Amino acid sequence: MDIQSATWTEVRDAETNLAMVPIGSTEQHGPHAALGTDTLNAETVAETAADRLDDPVAVSPAVSVGVAEEHRQFSGTLWTSESTFRSYVRDIVESLAFHGFDRVVLVNGHGGNVAALREVAGTITRHDDAYAVPFTWFEAVGEDAPPMGHGGALETSLLQHANPDAVREDRLDDAAAEGTRRWGNWKGKVNLAFDSAEFTENGVVGDPREASADLGEDLLDAASEALVDLLETVAEHDTERPPRK
Amino acid sequence: MDIQSATWTEVRDAETNLAMVPIGSTEQHGPHAALGTDTLNAETVAETAADRLDDPVAVSPAVSVGVAEEHRQFSGTLWTSESTFRSYVRDIVESLAFHGFDRVVLVNGHGGNVAALREVAGTITRHDDAYAVPFTWFEAVGEDAPPMGHGGALETSLLQHANPDAVREDRLDDAAAEGTRRWGNWKGKVNLAFDSAEFTENGVVGDPREASADLGEDLLDAASEALVDLLETVAEHDTERPPRK
Amino acid sequence: MDIQSATWTEVRDAETNLAMVPIGSTEQHGPHAALGTDTLNAETVAETAADRLDDPVAVSPAVSVGVAEEHRQFSGTLWTSESTFRSYVRDIVESLAFHGFDRVVLVNGHGGNVAALREVAGTITRHDDAYAVPFTWFEAVGEDAPPMGHGGALETSLLQHANPDAVREDRLDDAAAEGTRRWGNWKGKVNLAFDSAEFTENGVVGDPREASADLGEDLLDAASEALVDLLETVAEHDTERPPRK
Amino acid sequence: MDIQSATWTEVRDAETNLAMVPIGSTEQHGPHAALGTDTLNAETVAETAADRLDDPVAVSPAVSVGVAEEHRQFSGTLWTSESTFRSYVRDIVESLAFHGFDRVVLVNGHGGNVAALREVAGTITRHDDAYAVPFTWFEAVGEDAPPMGHGGALETSLLQHANPDAVREDRLDDAAAEGTRRWGNWKGKVNLAFDSAEFTENGVVGDPREASADLGEDLLDAASEALVDLLETVAEHDTERPPRK
Amino acid sequence: MDIQSATWTEVRDAETNLAMVPIGSTEQHGPHAALGTDTLNAETVAETAADRLDDPVAVSPAVSVGVAEEHRQFSGTLWTSESTFRSYVRDIVESLAFHGFDRVVLVNGHGGNVAALREVAGTITRHDDAYAVPFTWFEAVGEDAPPMGHGGALETSLLQHANPDAVREDRLDDAAAEGTRRWGNWKGKVNLAFDSAEFTENGVVGDPREASADLGEDLLDAASEALVDLLETVAEHDTERPPRK
Amino acid sequence: MDIQSATWTEVRDAETNLAMVPIGSTEQHGPHAALGTDTLNAETVAETAADRLDDPVAVSPAVSVGVAEEHRQFSGTLWTSESTFRSYVRDIVESLAFHGFDRVVLVNGHGGNVAALREVAGTITRHDDAYAVPFTWFEAVGEDAPPMGHGGALETSLLQHANPDAVREDRLDDAAAEGTRRWGNWKGKVNLAFDSAEFTENGVVGDPREASADLGEDLLDAASEALVDLLETVAEHDTERPPRK
Repeated sequence: MDIQSATWTEVRDAETNLAMVPIGSTEQHGPHAALGTDTLNAETVAETAADRLDDPVAVSPAVSVGVAEEHRQFSGTLWTSESTFRSYVRDIVESLAFHGFDRVVLVNGHGGNVAALREVAGTITRHDDAYAVPFTWFEAVGEDAPPMGHGGALETSLLQHANPDAVREDRLDDAAAEGTRRWGNWKGKVNLAFDSAEFTENGVVGDPREASADLGEDLLDAASEALVDLLETVAEHDTERPPRK
Repeated sequence: MDIQSATWTEVRDAETNLAMVPIGSTEQHGPHAALGTDTLNAETVAETAADRLDDPVAVSPAVSVGVAEEHRQFSGTLWTSESTFRSYVRDIVESLAFHGFDRVVLVNGHGGNVAALREVAGTITRHDDAYAVPFTWFEAVGEDAPPMGHGGALETSLLQHANPDAVREDRLDDAAAEGTRRWGNWKGKVNLAFDSAEFTENGVVGDPREASADLGEDLLDAASEALVDLLETVAEHDTERPPRK
Repeated sequence: MDIQSATWTEVRDAETNLAMVPIGSTEQHGPHAALGTDTLNAETVAETAADRLDDPVAVSPAVSVGVAEEHRQFSGTLWTSESTFRSYVRDIVESLAFHGFDRVVLVNGHGGNVAALREVAGTITRHDDAYAVPFTWFEAVGEDAPPMGHGGALETSLLQHANPDAVREDRLDDAAAEGTRRWGNWKGKVNLAFDSAEFTENGVVGDPREASADLGEDLLDAASEALVDLLETVAEHDTERPPRK
Repeated sequence: MDIQSATWTEVRDAETNLAMVPIGSTEQHGPHAALGTDTLNAETVAETAADRLDDPVAVSPAVSVGVAEEHRQFSGTLWTSESTFRSYVRDIVESLAFHGFDRVVLVNGHGGNVAALREVAGTITRHDDAYAVPFTWFEAVGEDAPPMGHGGALETSLLQHANPDAVREDRLDDAAAEGTRRWGNWKGKVNLAFDSAEFTENGVVGDPREASADLGEDLLDAASEALVDLLETVAEHDTERPPRK
Repeated sequence: MDIQSATWTEVRDAETNLAMVPIGSTEQHGPHAALGTDTLNAETVAETAADRLDDPVAVSPAVSVGVAEEHRQFSGTLWTSESTFRSYVRDIVESLAFHGFDRVVLVNGHGGNVAALREVAGTITRHDDAYAVPFTWFEAVGEDAPPMGHGGALETSLLQHANPDAVREDRLDDAAAEGTRRWGNWKGKVNLAFDSAEFTENGVVGDPREASADLGEDLLDAASEALVDLLETVAEHDTERPPRK
Repeated sequence: MDIQSATWTEVRDAETNLAMVPIGSTEQHGPHAALGTDTLNAETVAETAADRLDDPVAVSPAVSVGVAEEHRQFSGTLWTSESTFRSYVRDIVESLAFHGFDRVVLVNGHGGNVAALREVAGTITRHDDAYAVPFTWFEAVGEDAPPMGHGGALETSLLQHANPDAVREDRLDDAAAEGTRRWGNWKGKVNLAFDSAEFTENGVVGDPREASADLGEDLLDAASEALVDLLETVAEHDTERPPRK
């Protein structure tokens, strides 16, 4: 159930305590993919899982500006501080819980949000009236999928399948040619870079030429199945905090 | 230029310092109108004005959860604290300004956001690197329009014109019958109520039976023209703070 | 009962749960009216209403620095951030409520405080142990009163009646001559200005030559009667939050 | 120059960079002295010093609610959190400095404010555009004065001299009889108490029977002279931060 | 019981509700004493008292960076804002209380921490689930001890006794020669200085040549006995907040 | 150069802009390893690297309470909120940078700190006057090392080598027997647990019976070499933020 499209009476009548909050970002994804890539992909996965799940699940509007300051040197990238981001997500989850949707999956489309979401999910679960857990779709596409990158094969494929207008097909070669192959600037296990412009000329990491709508369909299938499994697990999960030792 | 749909290279190439941030809310709008009404209407007005403006203007994704705690007794209403809301809007405007879009109109669709937006626009204009000003579409539809209400003729008409799926036509009579005619619970000029459930049974204020798609088209015309005028004015406005007396 | 003038034993013995917090500002009011105009006027109205009310009501000391950054270009204007202002008012109301004065009217003398007071009253009423509501005296003087302005006929008249030393009578002509007639710099319904120095040379909006002590007496009568009515209503008001729909 | 009583044009014409902020508290002072004692006394000392100083000095309105939670068990005591208190004082000093009054003495009448004022003065001096220093009047009355206490001889005397209405003369015996003689509940040098109700029945510490208007006059003389000396020193003080070693 | 050295099972088995948090600073102490002086001394006193106390007491790791911005002009001085410092201490005490150690003595070695610790102890005692009280060792060494100073006889002696490596004996003469004898830059009772570099050339206040390991032993004896007395008192103290008057 | 052990004059004379901040935690590490394990190990690695580095490097005192609320059900675990933790680390780094040590490696011993440290390092690098980067020692011990776990072979070995008193050798069998083998409670790639007590009986993850002092020596060798390499790299690193695209 998409909350934005429903009326309050329809939400009132929905019998579920499950909710999803799609969480994206507005940030550069190379010369070929739209700035809204992460939001579009998070929405796609959340909607597909909502459709496939037997039980109803409330889906909030997407959070479309997230933790993306690392891409600020690229035009159009929007961001909020991590602190504001966590507060915004926490407030949304608390209002979902106020209506009884107190088991919430944060459906995430952006690597830069992962740590902040894990932190805020912990704060919510330990201190508020809800249980929340983040799910990042591209972590759930299986071992055989291409590497994640940024604006690479994974993200581009899902766009090609579900939001083809968001891909400039004629720029894929350029995107690949001037992109880089690995995220970050590493010394051992330490990433020395704090801005993606330190290691990629055009914002791309990976090879979007390997993308295809067919691959996108497979990825969506894998991610949404994993999300359905997670939702079913969360619905039954014992969310009581454990006793002290 | 819709930032989410554009690539960073396209945003880079846009020659403008104007931007709009559509700002809505996810909150009850009676049994007949979608919870996303305010966001949909803000987006409609912003997009129409962007189309009509001769010059390019960057349009950020909408802020779809706002200041709506007053509607919390109605299922599905989502809200953030005023403080978080201001921080979220401020961060978005600051990142727009980082890219040179430093004259920003906050295109608002929700009465409950008005005070918070005026405050944050003042903070931005006086202390950050941008000039920001809020525009609330239903304040700009002229003297002859029906009264604003909540889920009433104005909002419903604009939905019927631009997002007809968001209206449950078969519930308009019920919506009107159980709604109220005036916002608030007043003693003189003071509103004693802090929750809309104190004065409306079904969330409606006004009479949505007076709504029509034709009226919606007229409203959109008026509001988007006013917004175009505002954008043209803001583009030329002297945004220097005045000298001390 | 003026809390500052009373001893704690006298406050302990007062049988009421009503309180008022006078809230003003220290800000320019033209060349003819004192910077403390808003505080003086708020105190005058609160004290008069306290005298007229049959039942006792606790009156806290005035908050004399408020939301006034918009007047900063004029010497002597003092201000606090909106956030600090709200915290300061909230803390005062919470300590009043701690002693059982948990129905509180915020008696306000400054337009710039209105939005912040409504927000903090909502926060207090929804989340703390008190019910609070703002009352702005010049909104309660009836339809026939002159327009509000700033340092205009309304504010000057009340000073002339209750605090004549705060008016420089010999500067009224100058005040009017160099003042302006309308608050703000408007494009349609949008105020483009964030500093009053953008639209008034000497800080005046309105015509203080139309002021008189007699008019001030009438205004005080109207405002204090409205405030007495409000206090009586608040004393009986059902302050429970409404049930969920 | 009392800022509240002056017009902005008069403040503009004042040739000084000195300012004072009187800072009090609204808190129990025994059964015999008004809750506003600390504010009244701070104002008295500041006004007297302003009169005696050869040069002009801007005097802001008093901060009349301060750090007084330790007196909360006594009716009528108002307080703000230390954090809000510091923000409120800092904002006032920053707005004074905005107008050029950037050497500011915080004239304090309440022991509970001392630590918070020293902290905020340090923050202002090191990080803002002003130099600020706190002055607590009863620390400046000389070695021969009675001990400070709370509602004792010192505070009561100054009220008797400058604000006799604030003293209930007929309750002095009771005040002394049920009061205590020493502030706090001590184990060695550590005060175990965090609420004054832990060690005083009626809120009094000291013996207000030893108070007199004559003593009050002497105390005012001593404190205001010390404050004049301080203002003259601050006017000439090198407020540059020292170089690094 | 030193928490850091114990396992969680050992802490679980300890039968006590008493805890200590040693609190120091990393700041200049003249050319002869280590920057860690305050932390080392606080740890010494806390450990000695823990040994001497008949009952067990949990000792947390030391907070080694505190309120020391006043020494910033001297190399190596580290500091945190007062606000962060209070939050850090409060969080530690709250986690101690979570495990049942809800009577906590903050064992302090630095004058600059005193006010912040008193404030946070009040906040904890009034609003959290613990009773906390600060103890500053050099306030508890008796009337006959040398004056406190900074890097003077007191602090140096305790180092010489318990941490002799932290003293450069060959620089004591220089330390005394270029040091000063009184803390601060005073006008009457007001300290005009906010940086120690305003009144001491080398950071020393007092005369470290008067220090000795023997004196250090005596000081430790006095301070740790006073702390043992305090712990025994706190263990029995009625920590209920008093009833309202 | 250990800042705590040095005098300010010695720090002043050190010719380097490199610093390290050891960052640990006080949290359960099973029945066999001390609660201070993470702090001890972080200090060991930082000190060893400081010794091996040809150039001097300033080493601050360790932050010994970190992000550890997930272990709160186990006695003795201390924690601070993530927000306070970041502020505390940021303040320390800012004061290091104030003295010219503006290339800072945060030497971390606790997995729960990793995300918060990456966030605060980004904030510092982008917005303050320093470059900061986190280094987590157990990520740098090579492919052949045992898996990390918690209180497992890695951490126990380093303790056995450098702080043997922190290990209770006679409880290793019990520690292994009642411990678990994998961190978390997983559904696909999502960890459903927010408290370690949800998946480990005695706090152990991994097998501490595989630990040895010899292995600890090898681990220390690997980690400290990696840290020396990182320090040398950071010393030469171009810390300018990249230009906008």
